[in-house]
Amino acid sequence: MLIDGRWQPSTAAGVFQARNPMTGVELPALFPVSRWDDCDRALEAAHRAYRSMSEMPDGQIAEFLDGYATGIEEEAETIVAQAHVESGLPIKPRLRDVELPRTVDQLRQAAAAAREGSWRMPTIDTRANIRSFLASIGPVCVFGPSNFPLAFGSVSGGDFAAALAAGNPVIAKAHPLHPETARLMATIALQAVAAAGLPPATVQLLYHLEPEDGERMVSDRRLAASAFTGSRAAGLRLKRAADAAGKLIYLELSSINPVVILPGALAERGAEIADEFCTSALLGGGQFCTNPGLVVLLAGAESEAFIEQVARLFESKPAGRLMSDRIVSSLEESVSTLRAAGAVAAAEGACAEDCGYSHPNTLLRVSAAAFLERPAAFQTEAFGNASLLVVAESATEAARVVSSLEGNLTGCIYSAACGGDAAAYGMIARELRPRVGRLLNDKMPTGVSVSPAMNHGGPYPATGHPHFTAVGIPASLRRFSMLQCFDGVRQDRLPPLLQDDNPRRAWRQVDGRWMQ
Amino acid sequence: MLIDGRWQPSTAAGVFQARNPMTGVELPALFPVSRWDDCDRALEAAHRAYRSMSEMPDGQIAEFLDGYATGIEEEAETIVAQAHVESGLPIKPRLRDVELPRTVDQLRQAAAAAREGSWRMPTIDTRANIRSFLASIGPVCVFGPSNFPLAFGSVSGGDFAAALAAGNPVIAKAHPLHPETARLMATIALQAVAAAGLPPATVQLLYHLEPEDGERMVSDRRLAASAFTGSRAAGLRLKRAADAAGKLIYLELSSINPVVILPGALAERGAEIADEFCTSALLGGGQFCTNPGLVVLLAGAESEAFIEQVARLFESKPAGRLMSDRIVSSLEESVSTLRAAGAVAAAEGACAEDCGYSHPNTLLRVSAAAFLERPAAFQTEAFGNASLLVVAESATEAARVVSSLEGNLTGCIYSAACGGDAAAYGMIARELRPRVGRLLNDKMPTGVSVSPAMNHGGPYPATGHPHFTAVGIPASLRRFSMLQCFDGVRQDRLPPLLQDDNPRRAWRQVDGRWMQ
Repeated sequence: MLIDGRWQPSTAAGVFQARNPMTGVELPALFPVSRWDDCDRALEAAHRAYRSMSEMPDGQIAEFLDGYATGIEEEAETIVAQAHVESGLPIKPRLRDVELPRTVDQLRQAAAAAREGSWRMPTIDTRANIRSFLASIGPVCVFGPSNFPLAFGSVSGGDFAAALAAGNPVIAKAHPLHPETARLMATIALQAVAAAGLPPATVQLLYHLEPEDGERMVSDRRLAASAFTGSRAAGLRLKRAADAAGKLIYLELSSINPVVILPGALAERGAEIADEFCTSALLGGGQFCTNPGLVVLLAGAESEAFIEQVARLFESKPAGRLMSDRIVSSLEESVSTLRAAGAVAAAEGACAEDCGYSHPNTLLRVSAAAFLERPAAFQTEAFGNASLLVVAESATEAARVVSSLEGNLTGCIYSAACGGDAAAYGMIARELRPRVGRLLNDKMPTGVSVSPAMNHGGPYPATGHPHFTAVGIPASLRRFSMLQCFDGVRQDRLPPLLQDDNPRRAWRQVDGRWMQ
Repeated sequence: MLIDGRWQPSTAAGVFQARNPMTGVELPALFPVSRWDDCDRALEAAHRAYRSMSEMPDGQIAEFLDGYATGIEEEAETIVAQAHVESGLPIKPRLRDVELPRTVDQLRQAAAAAREGSWRMPTIDTRANIRSFLASIGPVCVFGPSNFPLAFGSVSGGDFAAALAAGNPVIAKAHPLHPETARLMATIALQAVAAAGLPPATVQLLYHLEPEDGERMVSDRRLAASAFTGSRAAGLRLKRAADAAGKLIYLELSSINPVVILPGALAERGAEIADEFCTSALLGGGQFCTNPGLVVLLAGAESEAFIEQVARLFESKPAGRLMSDRIVSSLEESVSTLRAAGAVAAAEGACAEDCGYSHPNTLLRVSAAAFLERPAAFQTEAFGNASLLVVAESATEAARVVSSLEGNLTGCIYSAACGGDAAAYGMIARELRPRVGRLLNDKMPTGVSVSPAMNHGGPYPATGHPHFTAVGIPASLRRFSMLQCFDGVRQDRLPPLLQDDNPRRAWRQVDGRWMQ
């Protein structure tokens, strides 16, 4: 493990090996499952590192983030080769052309935000001499997900970049599906930490924890906050522990990302939408937080034609690679739950023919009336290449389906370009809007661009707090901050961003006006 | 109770009466302790009201808030007379000249914020056509505290104004010490609701709940969030229930508001600071969230002279009025805990001579060494007119005392104007800054001005989330909002604040630049 700047042996409770999802065969390297002692040392080192970091200029952290981005680019071929072996994701285009550039871009955007300072929302009341801004908060533990080994990876992804840029050291807890990728990234990060002159424990890495040690970690007094992306069950266990200790935890749990396709849109461009949907639903084996798992249609010839076409595509497209046997079995279980509730197969493709992890592309359908009888069962997340179609008899019934949904990350509505679906759009958008973090028009939800206006968040249980987003800079940094007010504090004792002079030309709200 | 626009009888589990704190005598009016059925009806009505409100323009809510402010001014004499009888707070200057004008001012500031819209932080990425802003969240339950019947009152105070201005209906749970004041305010609010054409359940009032119904309320699926200001024990019970259901709860719990007074400041102006401290510590019977409960001094002649002077003032000033027998007994208990831990009396005034609720002004002292042996016991909050002085042998030891503190709302440092205390200031500020929401220089913490740069918040257990503030507009509104993103949504379907045109001239961040 990487603790306090040194690669150290773990006081391991056990060891584990990753597997190659394309073959199911174990990879040679052994990685430790840490005991509490490892966590304790990492927390102690992070706690000390934070004290030093909070006295350093923001530019030094920006230097680290930029240096790390460059280091990743220099080792790009090695990184994507390793991530490919551990995740089964294709090197091209996914890892080399999409995920790695996104990772590097996020780190650079985070560096720019840290250097510039506007993310802190400096607010100055000159009359009362009261000034406030968002300050760093302390060590952050990042639990990365399985599905993006780089762009959401615990030691390289969005939460990592945001926590660091906000001035906090990170203890990364790798996902056990890609420990070697995490080790590679941490090695590069460590060099960048040293080059920027940050404390060695700015970035630390543990590979695996016993569940009870994870709970102890997120509630430890030396930790300020945690960020977890993964399954609802594991996330809620951590939430319970963190909540009881009054510790912050940001969760990204499950989401079925409803897509409502109105008849006017199908009449105009049904075939095109069927294509878009299949691409989005099957992308990366369907292993996206924003995978469209639920499609609501209105009964009619257009919808039947759409279903027919999607079914043919699901059957003809190759089954995507899944990342682990556990994802396969969990997907099988979810599909069984949906079937047991009354969904029937609209299409079922074949499994991949090799011996790697896969599941047939699965399209299920159910009537809205049946859905409304068991809304909880029909909202079972099927993480992977399976989607459920719900056919409603009317826009009113479709709106009722939407109003029975839990909180989700995204919700999409496709409607006629000419305005023919206006009444149905209004009725459905009214129900959908408060239930999702991001509402899309005529667009599938899978893409999550790193835009300042992005929201990769949403109402519980999609996340733990609907005010915050996990993607988008500067907003994602704000999760890892506390509001600090300076009341009558003398000019030379104020943080530079709150002094009268503003040489960094950060955006500040001065007496109610934003200015640079 | 006020449910869905009508004053209705409660399906009461019991009744209660408030008492006049100046005499200890029960006031004549009987008020109900609600059963769950009342809560259920209020939640149902709030849920419906929210659906209508979310389709109304922000200006309509602003109209309500302004109308309510005017209504309060028109009934000012009646209101302050009633609040005086129930709280024992003096009509002049406190209620008539300070608290009521503050209440009215907050409502008007909230109205202006709602009307103008900048609080929503509209963010537009024109290239990607992704737009986001903070939207209302749903019904909010406000549990008001005992100590500010108007300015923090459940049906008139800061949380109420913030939740409403953010577009949410409020279910107010009155504090049982001043039910008639709450009833009066709700009557005026109801008229303003009707005048503004808002749904009748925009403002509802319950007087008292069984603890288990409070827990059920904050975790109900129809409620979006709660705000609680009060005791740590009651707040944490509600937090546990809300957390388990994934519901937001904003807490303002306890705070002892440390004040560090350095020798240079005492040498320069010791007598003046002693006066300031006593005024702040004894204001309103010490019943302020920002009451200075802990003073850290460095051993020496100046500090002894300061203690001597404060002791004389504590003994000579009249004991303030406390609001209830429970506050008296809880204060007695806290003082006993502090004494049992080893604090000794530096001064003890006399009780008020009448038969109302009071407690002698109490000044305790302890050495820093003793404090550091039992930091938890010595941080027992003594809500009321009692403060603990801690005498440290050196600035280093004072810094250790500060570093043993829990999260607090405020922290103050007094230092020499000429810069003589610079080294000690640096050492202590470094420890104090991350532990408090607001850091003050040369100023007591009791005043909490409604400034956009204010932070009335702080690290746990002072509050539940250090990112948010309960005072200060527009920031306090943001607690009751969710981030909503619109991705590729057609122009005419966007909320007005996110359309290309900006007729309200709200501040918006467009492609990284704030503009009107």
